[in-house]
Amino acid sequence: MPGASDRPHVVIIGGGFGGLYAAKALKGAPVRITLIDRRNHHLFQPLLYQVATAALAAPDIAAPIRKILRRQRNVTVLLDEAREIDTASRRVRLSGGELAYDYLVVAAGATHSYFGHDDWADYAPGLKTIGDAFEIRRKVLMAYERAEGESDPQRRQELLTFVVVGAGPTGVELAGALSEIARRTLARDFRNVNPGSAKIVLMDASDRVLPAYEPGLSDRARLQLEDLGVEIHTGVRVTKIDNEGVHTGDSVLRAGTVLWAAGVQASPLGRSLGVPQDRAGRVLVEPDLSIPEHPEVLVIGDQAAVKHDDGWVPGVAPAAIQMGRHAANNIRRALRSQEMLPFRYADKGMLATIGRSRAVAQLGRMKFSGWIAWMLWLCIHIFFLIGFRNRLAVLLDWMWAYFTFQRSARIIMEDKHFEETQRETDLRKAG
Amino acid sequence: MPGASDRPHVVIIGGGFGGLYAAKALKGAPVRITLIDRRNHHLFQPLLYQVATAALAAPDIAAPIRKILRRQRNVTVLLDEAREIDTASRRVRLSGGELAYDYLVVAAGATHSYFGHDDWADYAPGLKTIGDAFEIRRKVLMAYERAEGESDPQRRQELLTFVVVGAGPTGVELAGALSEIARRTLARDFRNVNPGSAKIVLMDASDRVLPAYEPGLSDRARLQLEDLGVEIHTGVRVTKIDNEGVHTGDSVLRAGTVLWAAGVQASPLGRSLGVPQDRAGRVLVEPDLSIPEHPEVLVIGDQAAVKHDDGWVPGVAPAAIQMGRHAANNIRRALRSQEMLPFRYADKGMLATIGRSRAVAQLGRMKFSGWIAWMLWLCIHIFFLIGFRNRLAVLLDWMWAYFTFQRSARIIMEDKHFEETQRETDLRKAG
Repeated sequence: MPGASDRPHVVIIGGGFGGLYAAKALKGAPVRITLIDRRNHHLFQPLLYQVATAALAAPDIAAPIRKILRRQRNVTVLLDEAREIDTASRRVRLSGGELAYDYLVVAAGATHSYFGHDDWADYAPGLKTIGDAFEIRRKVLMAYERAEGESDPQRRQELLTFVVVGAGPTGVELAGALSEIARRTLARDFRNVNPGSAKIVLMDASDRVLPAYEPGLSDRARLQLEDLGVEIHTGVRVTKIDNEGVHTGDSVLRAGTVLWAAGVQASPLGRSLGVPQDRAGRVLVEPDLSIPEHPEVLVIGDQAAVKHDDGWVPGVAPAAIQMGRHAANNIRRALRSQEMLPFRYADKGMLATIGRSRAVAQLGRMKFSGWIAWMLWLCIHIFFLIGFRNRLAVLLDWMWAYFTFQRSARIIMEDKHFEETQRETDLRKAG
Repeated sequence: MPGASDRPHVVIIGGGFGGLYAAKALKGAPVRITLIDRRNHHLFQPLLYQVATAALAAPDIAAPIRKILRRQRNVTVLLDEAREIDTASRRVRLSGGELAYDYLVVAAGATHSYFGHDDWADYAPGLKTIGDAFEIRRKVLMAYERAEGESDPQRRQELLTFVVVGAGPTGVELAGALSEIARRTLARDFRNVNPGSAKIVLMDASDRVLPAYEPGLSDRARLQLEDLGVEIHTGVRVTKIDNEGVHTGDSVLRAGTVLWAAGVQASPLGRSLGVPQDRAGRVLVEPDLSIPEHPEVLVIGDQAAVKHDDGWVPGVAPAAIQMGRHAANNIRRALRSQEMLPFRYADKGMLATIGRSRAVAQLGRMKFSGWIAWMLWLCIHIFFLIGFRNRLAVLLDWMWAYFTFQRSARIIMEDKHFEETQRETDLRKAG
C-alpha cells in the first residue's frame, strides 16, 4: 500500500482458524499484515474426515486464503513455510527468505503424533491435510478392491478389517463413516466380496470413547457406534503397528487398513521460541497469549497451552477462533500502548457426530444425543463453513448422501498410488 | 451369478465412454462380462479441463465404475491393468493375473503423444487423467504464487507467461480458461503482481485454430480467443520444450508454464493384437469393428481407426459411445450366430467452448458461435453427465462461476508438490 510501508509489520504464521481470524480481526488496523502459510488454502478441519470417507470433495471444505482475504487491503498472503523464529532479532526464517516483524502471531497448529513411533506413520496415516484425506480415501477404497480380487478367504477378511486407533471425536467420526461405507454405500457394488462383512474396530487406551466428554455421553456414543456395527476396544494400549496390523501386547489384530486418530503434537516451530512447552509441544503462554519476555509474540490455537478453569483450553476450532480474535485485539491495544488483556475461553460446548442421524452434544449443562444432536451438528457446521458456495455444495452432498446412502466422492485420485499398491499385491503373490 | 458360469465370457478393457456403453448395451444378454480398468472411476473427459482450471472438483466429473454398473448383475468390475492380449489363446494378461475371454472389447483409449520427445512431458504436462488435471492446476496456481514472491521483473513476467501447445478443442478450452483466470478470477488476489498482465499464448503447427472445424468457425474461435486476450501463434512448429520455455527453431518463448494439448497416441495395448495400426497407434479395424481373422476381438473408441466418408471417425465421446453400443450389438448377433454388421458413425456435430459466453458449434450444415453455441455446449454437457448428483453440482459450480467470476476449486492439493517447487525456487535463488 502506498505510504503504508512505515506501518508496524504484523506477521501471522498459519492460515488455519487462529491465524485467519487474527488477520480478519485486524481489518482496518494501522498495520501491514503478512500471513504465511505453506498451503494456499484454509481448511475447514472439522469436516476433513468427510473428504477422507468420500462424502465431500476437497474444494467443499477448502478455500484459497487469498480469496478469503482479497478485500482486506492491509494483508499480504505469502505461500511459504516458516522454518524458524528468532525472537531476539524479531525475524522469521522462511524456505524462501526472511521476514522482519514488529508483532508476531504464531498459529502453525498441530500435526498427529505417534508418541515416538514415527515408523507407524507408514501403516497408519493420520488426518490433518487434504493430502492425508486422499491417502485415507485411497487406502479404504483400495482395501475393498483388493479384497474383490483376493481368493484366500482369511486374507480377504484381513483386507476387510479396518482399525481406527484413538476414540476422540475424529476417531469416532471415522469409525462411524467406515461402518456406513461398508454397510450402506458399497453394499451392492461388489460381486465376490460382501462389504457388509467388513469389520470396523475403534481402539482407545482409555476406558471409554470420547474421554473428553462426560461419561453419560460416552455411553450414548458407544451404543450408537455399536448400533452401526463398530467393535469398540477400550482400555487397550497399542504397542506396535506394522503391515500385519495392530499389536497390543502379545496379541495382534490383523487388519488391511489402520487409521491413526490418537495423538496430536504441536508444530515444531514452537521450539525455536525458546520458551517452556508442554509434553505435546504446545507453548505455555502468558494469560494474554504472549510469551515470557516477548509481549510482541503471541501464540494461539492448537499450538498454545492455555489454562482454562482447572484444565486447559481444548484444541478445537472455536477456541482457535477466539484466540485469534483476542490476539488481534491485544495487538490493537499495544499499538495504542494499552496493556494487553488476559484471554478467557468461552466454552460453547462440544459436538461429535457418529453417523447418519447419530451424534452427541454437550452444551454447558445440556446434553443431547441421536437425531437432535446430529441436526445440531449439521446446522452448526454448515453455518460456520466459509463461503456461501461451499455451504450450498456441502448441503447438496449431504442431502444426496442422506437420501441415497451414496457418497459422491468415491474416486481414487492418483494412478501412481494404485500402481504402487498393485506392485505390493504382485509381490505378495510372488512371495 | 449362480449357474451363469457356463455363459460366454465377454471381457471389456477400459471404463471410458466406449467400454462403459458397451457394457451397458449388453445388459440382460446371456453373457458374463468382466470390465477391467486401472482406475476405479469413469471420467467425463470433455469437462476434465475444468478440473485442471479449478472450475470443477474432481468428483463432479468422475463416478465409480462399480456404482454406475451396480445394478447390472452380469457385469463384474475389476480394478486392474491389462498388460498384453494373446489373441491365439484368447487371454488377457493383467498386472494381477490372467483372464480368458470368448469375446474381447478393447477400449483402452489414448494418451497424449509428444511425437517422440517424451522428455518434453516433464515441462509440458498433458491432460488425460485426474492426476494430470491436478498437476496442471497446481502448476498454474503456483506460477502466480511464485510470481508474487519474485523480485526480478523479467523473471516475474516469465512466470506469468502460459503457453498452450495445440489448438484443438482442448487447447482452445485451456487457453480460454487460463485467460479468464488471469483477467477475472485472480484479478484482485495478489499484492505484488497483477494477474491481468499474464500472457497466454496458444500455439499450433497448422495455419488456424480448431483445424478440424470448417474455416469460418476457426476464424470466429480466433476472434473470441483474441477478445479474451489470448495470443495466437499458428503455423509454428515446436522444436524443443525445456525449463526455459518453448523453442520454435532458433527463437525461444520463455514461459513458466507450458501445457501440452497437441498429439494423442492410442494405448500401446493395441500393439499386442499383432494387426496393422496407423501412425497414432490406432488399430485399423474391419468395418464391423473386429480385427482381421479375429471376429471375437472388437476395438473401439480412441483406440480404433475407423473409416468415415473420405476421412476417419474423430476421437470424440459420441463416437466412442456409438462404437461401444455397436460392438455390444455385434456380440449379441454373434451369440445368435448372425453376421456382424458394419459400423456407421452418425456425426452429431462438433462443439468447442472458449470461455464464458464464448463457443463455436458445427451441427451438420448449421453453424453457431458466441453465446448461443455456449448455451448449447452447457446444456449438452450437463445432459450427458453421468449421475443426477453431478449434474446438480456442476450446474451449481457453473452458476457460481458465471455470476461471481470465481472458480471454486482453486486449491493446490499436494504439499509435497509445493515443497518440490520450493526447492526449485531455492535452487534458482542459490544458483
